[in-house]
Amino acid sequence: MQTNQRIDGIRLWDSLMAMARIGATPKGGVKRLTLTEVDKRGRDQFRQWCEALGLTVRVDAIGNMFARREGRDPTRLPVLLGSHLDSQPSGGKFDGALGVIAGLEVMRTLHDLNITTEAPIELVNWTDEEGSRFGHSLMGSGAWSGIYTLDKLYNLKDPDGVRVEDALDAIGYRGPHPAAPFPADAYFELHIEQGPILEREEKPIGIVTGAQAMIWYDARVVGQDAHAGTTPPSARRDALVAAARVVDLVDRLMRERGEDGRGTVGYMQVLPNSRNVVPGEVRFSVEFRHPADARIAGLGESFPAEAQALVAATGCKLELTELFRLPAQPFDAGCVDLVRQAAARLGLPAREIVSGAGHDACYVARHVPTAMIFTPCKDGLSHNEEESIEPHEAESGCQVLFEAVLARANRALSAG
Amino acid sequence: MQTNQRIDGIRLWDSLMAMARIGATPKGGVKRLTLTEVDKRGRDQFRQWCEALGLTVRVDAIGNMFARREGRDPTRLPVLLGSHLDSQPSGGKFDGALGVIAGLEVMRTLHDLNITTEAPIELVNWTDEEGSRFGHSLMGSGAWSGIYTLDKLYNLKDPDGVRVEDALDAIGYRGPHPAAPFPADAYFELHIEQGPILEREEKPIGIVTGAQAMIWYDARVVGQDAHAGTTPPSARRDALVAAARVVDLVDRLMRERGEDGRGTVGYMQVLPNSRNVVPGEVRFSVEFRHPADARIAGLGESFPAEAQALVAATGCKLELTELFRLPAQPFDAGCVDLVRQAAARLGLPAREIVSGAGHDACYVARHVPTAMIFTPCKDGLSHNEEESIEPHEAESGCQVLFEAVLARANRALSAG
Repeated sequence: MQTNQRIDGIRLWDSLMAMARIGATPKGGVKRLTLTEVDKRGRDQFRQWCEALGLTVRVDAIGNMFARREGRDPTRLPVLLGSHLDSQPSGGKFDGALGVIAGLEVMRTLHDLNITTEAPIELVNWTDEEGSRFGHSLMGSGAWSGIYTLDKLYNLKDPDGVRVEDALDAIGYRGPHPAAPFPADAYFELHIEQGPILEREEKPIGIVTGAQAMIWYDARVVGQDAHAGTTPPSARRDALVAAARVVDLVDRLMRERGEDGRGTVGYMQVLPNSRNVVPGEVRFSVEFRHPADARIAGLGESFPAEAQALVAATGCKLELTELFRLPAQPFDAGCVDLVRQAAARLGLPAREIVSGAGHDACYVARHVPTAMIFTPCKDGLSHNEEESIEPHEAESGCQVLFEAVLARANRALSAG
Repeated sequence: MQTNQRIDGIRLWDSLMAMARIGATPKGGVKRLTLTEVDKRGRDQFRQWCEALGLTVRVDAIGNMFARREGRDPTRLPVLLGSHLDSQPSGGKFDGALGVIAGLEVMRTLHDLNITTEAPIELVNWTDEEGSRFGHSLMGSGAWSGIYTLDKLYNLKDPDGVRVEDALDAIGYRGPHPAAPFPADAYFELHIEQGPILEREEKPIGIVTGAQAMIWYDARVVGQDAHAGTTPPSARRDALVAAARVVDLVDRLMRERGEDGRGTVGYMQVLPNSRNVVPGEVRFSVEFRHPADARIAGLGESFPAEAQALVAATGCKLELTELFRLPAQPFDAGCVDLVRQAAARLGLPAREIVSGAGHDACYVARHVPTAMIFTPCKDGLSHNEEESIEPHEAESGCQVLFEAVLARANRALSAG
């Protein structure tokens, strides 16, 4: 049985720590910004590890790396697995890297056990998941999925004015293969949860059933600047009081939708922002997320009117601009079930979970049957140098990844 | 009767407009920052106008200017009147300048009518009321009142590193007279209201009975940064939601205290202030003002506990630092009554009002019987280039000032 085929948790952890040394920060985190010299060192290390296993590494036009292990049946579509090696400026050791290095450990285990799968397997390192350098997250998977054109992406610039295309050339990772979706049988991605749910419920495995729907707004409340000492209550149009009530509304609407709801005002700017002046203008962001498209559609109907009413009651005006709506992205039931079965077979407590963050898997899922596996992370922290997981958590996640990939690559295909 | 002795409204307006040309801004306002070359031109113009009337101008060590007109009785203490000629960086034509130029018009009228008052009269231009350049408002009146030491004030620096003492020397306005309170019989200051009350009630005259008590806080709410997409409601400690509820509390506490209440959060900084991060920290200011010391004392008792309870309910922590409490500064009943009588005698609708803003009069009142007169200003706007009053409003205010000063300077003194 497959449960006797074990990945090597110590080797996995050692490679995770080796990768974490590339761009290590004094506070124990990682700064491996996409397409920098540090990223190149991470990529080179990854390529070397892959080639040592006999994998064939190819690079596409946006720098995505695919390390292929052939299967027994040359007619079968490849099973993909992977994640990203780039990090936030003050990132952690595991966001992205866990999925890539665990994928490497899957390859190493197949190699050690001398397993030939039916389908080929390809391990992917997607370019620039984080968006920290060029302001555009999910760049590599977005290009591969055909959501963004190469022309658009190549001309994005970092704060120093360096173009993506030139950055790719500078580190030698503008590859000859087209950045376009090729037929694949499945995609599996292991990732830290970046939230507190699994840790709180002491579940080592999250069976990710899909990604949330979301709606983002820019909001601007306009009142009137006024002297804080001389302006009586009846004459005030305090933009911050109005904005504060919208902040409270966003929180209330989130809580009304239960534990699956998300509603956040993360950004706010107060004008003129002077201690003794009643604020005349406040700009802020609003976002809602929910696993169900219908709940986001409902918020898109009700929130603007409720917010307008609250703001109007203060004598201020609200300008609300909907920036975008993303539909929920359910993952493939068959692939999700392979994750569920693997966790059950291994006796690992697991729960279904919807991804709150965006991941490369969300874009890949538009073309390829996809599932994700989450592991807990300490205090739910991510995008933070204190991001942390335990070695046994990495091992459990990697073992589930191994089982799911192997099952998919060896599944019996129905005739015709 | 005194009501036949009329100030010259056209001359008053012409001089106001002449002063407004010194530091005029393209948008119709004034930038006459204290102790700059522009301020020097305003001061020189003021001195020249005063000396043309035979007044003796002396300057003290902080640059306050006193233009003295002798009375009949050399044993009587002087009656003071005045305001300030410095402005905000984007200030208006009338904030401060009205009180100084109206005082000049009082002097001119006494001159024209050949009136010799019993007591001497001194017209004051206080240095740096606004605090815009050196970060310290009410500098001249504060030094004169003994609230701040010269040594402390001399060493304050503007953003370019220029010290107050050097700025005084540079424009030749560090005078030989001590910046210390000298005995005076009274002080009268005419000023625009800088609020909407008189305009709304169509009262050309505000009989200012005193200045508000106030209490200022610095507040810091600490929650936890968290991913906006992955962090469920139950795991959030959203510092902005907590701060928003305190903003709403401040507004409610203000309104519960009626039209005399003031409560403002004018400044707020959100951290990390990123669209998809639940804010982990928010810093903001809180201030309350009220004419009654007891109401401010009561707020000082109740507000911290109410705010703490609101913040604790969100899982965040509140650090509240009381910066200062200023007691209410009631003006002198006798001087206030002279203002009331003058308005009544002139048939000018008037109402009692408490100053919401700080004025030089608030500090002078600690040593000298003081009253203020307010005129309406358009839409209550001040500290704004659109600050505006009507010529007839300036004239009415100046006429009341004239009557009150003349009555005080000629009052019969009780024996002994």
